[in-house]
Formats: sequence, C-alpha cells, structure tokens
Amino acid sequence: MPDLQVQCSRCGEEFPPDKVLTVCTKCGGALLFRYDLQRVANTVSKDGLKKRSDSFWKFIELLPLSSAQSIVSLGEPYTPVLRFPQSSIEGLENVYVKDDGRLPTGTFKARGMAVGVSKLKELGIRRIAVPSAGNAGAALAAYGARAGLEVYAFMPKDVPQAILKECIYLGAKVYLVNGSINDAGEIVKKFEPKYDWFSISTNKQPYRVEGYKAIAFEIAEQFNWNPPDSIIFPTGGGEGVIGLWKGFKELTDIGWTKKTPRIIIVQSTGCAPLVKAFINNEPEVKEPWQKAHTIATGLNVPFPYASYLILRALRETNGKATEVKDEEVISSMKTLFRKGIYACPEAAATLAALEKLKNQDTFDRGESILLYLTGNATKYLDVLKIRKEQLPVLGPNASSLD
Amino acid sequence: MPDLQVQCSRCGEEFPPDKVLTVCTKCGGALLFRYDLQRVANTVSKDGLKKRSDSFWKFIELLPLSSAQSIVSLGEPYTPVLRFPQSSIEGLENVYVKDDGRLPTGTFKARGMAVGVSKLKELGIRRIAVPSAGNAGAALAAYGARAGLEVYAFMPKDVPQAILKECIYLGAKVYLVNGSINDAGEIVKKFEPKYDWFSISTNKQPYRVEGYKAIAFEIAEQFNWNPPDSIIFPTGGGEGVIGLWKGFKELTDIGWTKKTPRIIIVQSTGCAPLVKAFINNEPEVKEPWQKAHTIATGLNVPFPYASYLILRALRETNGKATEVKDEEVISSMKTLFRKGIYACPEAAATLAALEKLKNQDTFDRGESILLYLTGNATKYLDVLKIRKEQLPVLGPNASSLD
Repeated sequence: MPDLQVQCSRCGEEFPPDKVLTVCTKCGGALLFRYDLQRVANTVSKDGLKKRSDSFWKFIELLPLSSAQSIVSLGEPYTPVLRFPQSSIEGLENVYVKDDGRLPTGTFKARGMAVGVSKLKELGIRRIAVPSAGNAGAALAAYGARAGLEVYAFMPKDVPQAILKECIYLGAKVYLVNGSINDAGEIVKKFEPKYDWFSISTNKQPYRVEGYKAIAFEIAEQFNWNPPDSIIFPTGGGEGVIGLWKGFKELTDIGWTKKTPRIIIVQSTGCAPLVKAFINNEPEVKEPWQKAHTIATGLNVPFPYASYLILRALRETNGKATEVKDEEVISSMKTLFRKGIYACPEAAATLAALEKLKNQDTFDRGESILLYLTGNATKYLDVLKIRKEQLPVLGPNASSLD
Repeated sequence: MPDLQVQCSRCGEEFPPDKVLTVCTKCGGALLFRYDLQRVANTVSKDGLKKRSDSFWKFIELLPLSSAQSIVSLGEPYTPVLRFPQSSIEGLENVYVKDDGRLPTGTFKARGMAVGVSKLKELGIRRIAVPSAGNAGAALAAYGARAGLEVYAFMPKDVPQAILKECIYLGAKVYLVNGSINDAGEIVKKFEPKYDWFSISTNKQPYRVEGYKAIAFEIAEQFNWNPPDSIIFPTGGGEGVIGLWKGFKELTDIGWTKKTPRIIIVQSTGCAPLVKAFINNEPEVKEPWQKAHTIATGLNVPFPYASYLILRALRETNGKATEVKDEEVISSMKTLFRKGIYACPEAAATLAALEKLKNQDTFDRGESILLYLTGNATKYLDVLKIRKEQLPVLGPNASSLD
C-alpha cells in the first residue's frame, strides 16, 4: 500500500497504514487514511467505474484494503435513491431519500463494519470487541460471522430484545452491563490486554469511517456526478457524517464532482450536544449532554468523540445543525410509511428536520435535498402504536363493511 | 402492446392483454402473458442488458407494461447472491443463497406486487383488495402507497401485530376477519361489485407472476448466463415458483440461457399438499390439506390454486418436492444466522431441505445449488428464543468476564 498514509486529523502526526491503529498516540485525535488521489485520478475513470457492478465495493481504490481479496461481504448493492412525488413536500420540488435500511442487518452500520472487519482481518486481527447500545453490535456480529472472527458485544442490560437476539444468533459473545454504554466502553478497554481483542469503538479507530465514504460515492454516481445541494443526516456519534464528508472531499479532489453538498445534521432535543456547540460557535463539544434521552436511540450520544471533526464538516460545507422532538420523529415515521418507506426513528428525524428548516426559509424551492435514511423501521415497530380493538372485525357472513 | 398475448395455462383460451383479467372465464385456469420472444431476441442483447442498471426492472421487454412510465418503484436493486464458503456445507462445493429479504417490505412478495400494482394502475384500477395472512398485504400496501391507490387488506384476526402495524401505517384499510384466510377471500369476492376493487389473489390474476420472473432473470445474469443446476424454493401458493419457471423458459426460448435449473420445492410436514401430489404422481392437488399448521406461515397454504402449474414446473425441469419439520426450519434459521444471513422461516426451510436431500444423494458434489431466500428474519425473531437471565451481567467494576 505505497499510496496510503494515516494522519491525525487534529495534530497532523503520521502513522504507518499497515499497523493496527486506534487514536493518535500524541494528542488523542481521530486518525484518518489519506490516499494518493492524483494516482487514483490517473488510473480510474468515471466510464471505467460505470462498467463495474453497482456495489458498495465499487470504489475499491478509495478503500484502505490491500486487495479485493480482503473484502468481507454480505451483499451490498447500491442502496435505492427515491424521489418524492412533486407537491408531496409543499414548497420544495426536489426531495429525495436514500434508503440505507436495505443494507445487511438493516442499518447503515453495515457500511462501517464491512470495511472495518475486512481491514482488521487483513491485519491479522482474530477477535473484535464493541461496546454497543444496538445496531453497531449487530452489524459487527454479522460481518464477524461472515469473516470467521470472534465478536464480543458489551451492551447495557436494557438493550432491546430484538437486537440482543440478533447478536446472540449471529454468534457474538454477548455480555450485559449493569450500567451505561460508557461503562460498557470502560470494560472493553479494561479487558483488552487480557483477551487480546481489538476494540472497534466509534471514531476511536480509522477503519469504520472509510466504509461510510461509500455513501458519498454512491450518491455522486446515482446523481450523475452532480450531487444534491443539501444532505440531511441524523447524527449521534458522527462517524457516518464524517465519512460522508471525507468521501465528497476525495471526489472533488480527484475532480469527479464539482461540489460537496451542504451537510445538515439532525439531533434530538433530548440529546443535542453537537447542535449546541455549532450554535455557540465552539470548536468541539466540551461536556456531556445531561440526562440524555430520546426514542431515536442512535442519536443518544451525549459526548461524541471527534466532535471537532463533525463541526468542521458542517462549517466547511456551509452546513447546519438542528434538533427535533420525539413527537416530530414519530410523526415523520408515519408520513414516510404513508409513502411506502420504512424509516427507523433516526432516519425519520431527517424529514422532521426538513419540515422545520423549510419553515425557516433554509431552502430554495428548486434545490435538491437528500434525506439520508440510516435504518429500516422493522426493528422499531414498537414505537408505533395501534389500537387493535378499534379495527373492524367481520364475520364470515358479513353483509356490510361498516 | 401488439406483442403481448394472454392465454389460459389450462385450456389455451386467449384473452385481450389490455383488459383487466382474473382467471379463465371458460375453465377457471390461471392466465399467463405470452411475449413475442423472437422480437425480444432481435431487439435486445446481453451486452445491451449489461449497460442497464442492475434492477428488477432491467428486463422491461419481458414485463407486461406499456412503457417504463408505468413503473411503480420503491427501489429494487438486484438482490445479493452469496456463496457459502467451501466446506461449510459438508459434501457440497457450490452452494449459494439469493437474499430476497432485502427487497422493499423485506420479502419477495414485493416482486409480485411491484408489477401487479404497476400494471393495474396502468389499466386504470384505483382500488385493490387482498385477502392476506401477512406479507402479501404489506407488500401491496407499500406499492399501493407509492402509486397512490387505495388498498383494502382482509386478514384473519390472529395476524401478527407487526404485520398489522405495517399495513395500517402504510395506509391500507385493514379489516380483521373472524375466520380463516379462505373466509377473508370470500368477503373480498362478495364485496367486489359494491366497492369496485380489484382482488389481487394468488394465481387468480396474471400480473403478480410476471414480477417473480425477474428472480430467474437476475439469477441468470448474476451467474453469467450459466444458471445453477438446482434451485430450492420454499412454496406455499406457488406464484413465485411459477414465475421462476416461466422466467427461465422465456430466457431459454430467447436463447440467452441453455438450460432451466432443476426446480426443487420445499414445504412443511405440517402442510405439504404439493409434495403429496408430486409423490403420488397426480396432476394437481385434489383436496385441501387437513389441519394445516407450521411456524413457516407462508407455507401454510392447504389448497393452492393452480397447483397443476407448480407440478408441471417440477416435472418439466426434472425437479422434486420435499417437506421439512418445524424444528428443522428453526435449526436452519440458526445455522444461517451464524453465517451472517437473516432468513425468515420459509427461507430457512431451503437449507433444511438441502440437508435432507443431500443425505438422499440428490446432488453431485460439484453441482451448483441455489437456496432462494424469500424473506428477512427481522419480522420473525419471535421464533428464536433466548434466555436473557442466563447471560452474564457485569458491573462497571467487573474484574473478570467469567
């Protein structure tokens, strides 16, 4: 891998790309891979890309793998982009969704774990541990199962039953933690020397973020290299949005796209540390959000690591940060269902944000806006209530539907 | 549509392709579209197909739509084909799965409803009713929502809560029926004149089966036009397997493939009318299976309409019919999870069938075998049990993982 470098995104320190890395040993900053983009520009063309199959792995020259042999795949075709019918979002003409709920395990976490597991297996890692409140654990367990690696998942003991089942049946060794996700993280760190596992925590290693770059790559090609003006992205830990931003930067540096979309993140009013820091013009989140709570559990990250990078992404792209209430999330989940789209609460938050920002004149009528849907609704149907006893019940000889 | 014909698959009677059709008005047989395949061969090439995007709609010339303008889509990229690592299925070297649980609504029913809704909307239908015990209702509701059509779903009152929620939130008008799926079907038929809806029942209209043909088209292209030797397909009503067969026949008639795979259907020991008819060499299922019951509810079809067509597909392809027990289904679901694959019970039945038939020397060691996975496991996690109280619980200061 002579073209690859790894550099701290905070202090600039360089690290060897072929070693197992976590965070910067000098300043604790997040490490990021750097590619020889000029060389990519010289060896790969848009026409050449068009001939490759439409999968997550198409842009292999922009992934940190030594070769395509390293790929651990569960089947990752391009996820669909759907356009809302005109007039279905009042006052806006070009609104799209990208549905990452259609990836393996039903969430965008598959992107990070697909690349993370592929690279770590290549580096000789045999055992990976993750502190997780949910979908990251399931995605790691699934790709770990495919790769034949051992997976250890540490989850707060109130983890939803469905996700617990996924992880267990995918073969992960699951430990419940009588405490928070932070406590789970401490345990993973404490036992690392004894069990010799790699801890794949959000933004504390440079691998997962590389997988999220493919969101940008897919969008660029799906929009015929003229990406949407704005992308609304639900954000908790922020690894996904950093990947999106990094992906678009690489595309523009290569010269395949002319602009990076305005990146707009949405958080929950119950946990909005990034919104607060953005509005107060701070360079990073200074302290944990107190009493964090939201039904969109993926947004429930009180103290995101590498918050400076997320805020940098917003400022560099002339972006924004906004927050929505749980009831707006539920209402948006319903609206999306009525359009045939299965959006989990985090994903639905993007539509709630669109409605809110629209009323603040954030968008031009004709601009193109993409709502990035992080996950499928199927695991989250508990959030939606029905009153079965109020449904009409017909006998076999019913003479009327009333 | 000068190239299209519709013909009864039993008596050969012809019908106009541009009218709304159900079953043969002469003999009650299932109607099937027929294409001018010579013309398709003259106007479309494999190279031309390669340049189109890998979606369900790629083979538009082999769908009964007047134009691509009629397409109602929720995003249907080619579903993944994954190969089992060698030696993971003892004694067989080339076993694959095709994962249709990655389609909209999480099941293969999306294929039939995507084409059914597209064509019926083109024909001017505004209101569609379906008797359903589950996923067909959800798929119709989703595509109906996207198309802006009214959907009426009639479901036995013990329908799973999750599917009921999907249908309601997708905007379907849901009626519970105090009786069986057959009673629901009677109600749909009875109120048809009054409410002027189209009843989209399995094999009682020629539209949905056209959508399932794309399973064959995708497989053919994904296997570089050399389809697998055998395909194992879980079968209840059989619309999917008839579509698979029809699709491969059209491909061989055009000359794009040289063979149709051996079609092997799997049913449940709790409801196996097709297996019984196949083994007894009968031309069709003569009477309903008594006391039908299985956890694989999609296989719980005691008296499939158009069973003569399903049996014809098996005999023409030198196929087979086999049955598996519920406990084998659950065991296979677990085995697939351990490989990172989310298979619903019906889908998992294919692996159970493979294990059973393997022991009967049905397969050559090197032959290629594809397990067709009809749906995603996520809606069916209730089938898998865990004992949460047996999991280790760690305090924040845990000093050991034991």
